[in-house]
Amino acid sequence: MAPPPPTTVPPLAVLVVRILTFICLLISVIIIVTNTVTISNGISEVKIKFNDFYAYRYMLSTAVLGIAYTLVQSAFTIFRVSTGNRIGGDASAQIDFYGDKLISYVLATGAAAGFGLSVDSNRGNGSESSDTKDFFDKANAAASLLLIGFLLSAISSVISSLSLPKSG
Amino acid sequence: MAPPPPTTVPPLAVLVVRILTFICLLISVIIIVTNTVTISNGISEVKIKFNDFYAYRYMLSTAVLGIAYTLVQSAFTIFRVSTGNRIGGDASAQIDFYGDKLISYVLATGAAAGFGLSVDSNRGNGSESSDTKDFFDKANAAASLLLIGFLLSAISSVISSLSLPKSG
Repeated sequence: MAPPPPTTVPPLAVLVVRILTFICLLISVIIIVTNTVTISNGISEVKIKFNDFYAYRYMLSTAVLGIAYTLVQSAFTIFRVSTGNRIGGDASAQIDFYGDKLISYVLATGAAAGFGLSVDSNRGNGSESSDTKDFFDKANAAASLLLIGFLLSAISSVISSLSLPKSG
Repeated sequence: MAPPPPTTVPPLAVLVVRILTFICLLISVIIIVTNTVTISNGISEVKIKFNDFYAYRYMLSTAVLGIAYTLVQSAFTIFRVSTGNRIGGDASAQIDFYGDKLISYVLATGAAAGFGLSVDSNRGNGSESSDTKDFFDKANAAASLLLIGFLLSAISSVISSLSLPKSG
């Protein structure tokens, strides 16, 4: 088999992927934070929020971390697109490689933890109020966006792996 | 900053990481499959198994997939260690790169989905039987082993990224 052709991904494509990641994560965070449900049994009311569940707290943490990372990386990429230079040269490619890898794993686990709780919590709840179902449906929506964010960050990670400086 | 020194990871180290991954995943599968609890209220009994939960079924699928992949890769690595040749050359390095990346993401989501369900299910259950707690504790143990398996596969993924053929 012939070796694959050299891969040089234009910085603009990298930037677009990062910005899309950022948008997905931002919407996901907004959905998680605004997701509340009030359950009433006629006498007392119980308000359920995302931070009553460890899984959703973790999901939020990963999304916020992802947003912070994507913002910083986008700033560097914009610099690269506009000037054609790479701050830090080879070392910067190494940082991209490990950073993208780490963040994509973090986002993957965040989305999976959210789904892990929501999917099973949303089953067999026929007896419960449709408010509860709404709550877990919204949590699922947030997890789905986080999943898309993860897939985009995985693309970033593949790109930064392929553009590692050639050393061996 | 100076560029990092060339990285050439010996195939034997690669093999050791893969075998450790395999062992972790195998123990994790055994724990998941054998994890059952019988809840009795004095009149009737309900048996709860891992396949009553989507999150644990997914966890099991990812672990089994991981085992299959690790076995095949170990076989190829043993061939490489014993003969010093690499089947497929550069193309094989590409397959390792994408395969390791994919499997490490799969394992990460499997472990996270397991934790996402177990951690919250194990909280605030003071009123429930200690059998239920045992069940979720065991599920947590399986998820922990899967997490270790994921971390090991992430190491494999870094190694296979660094040993990509030089193209750019």
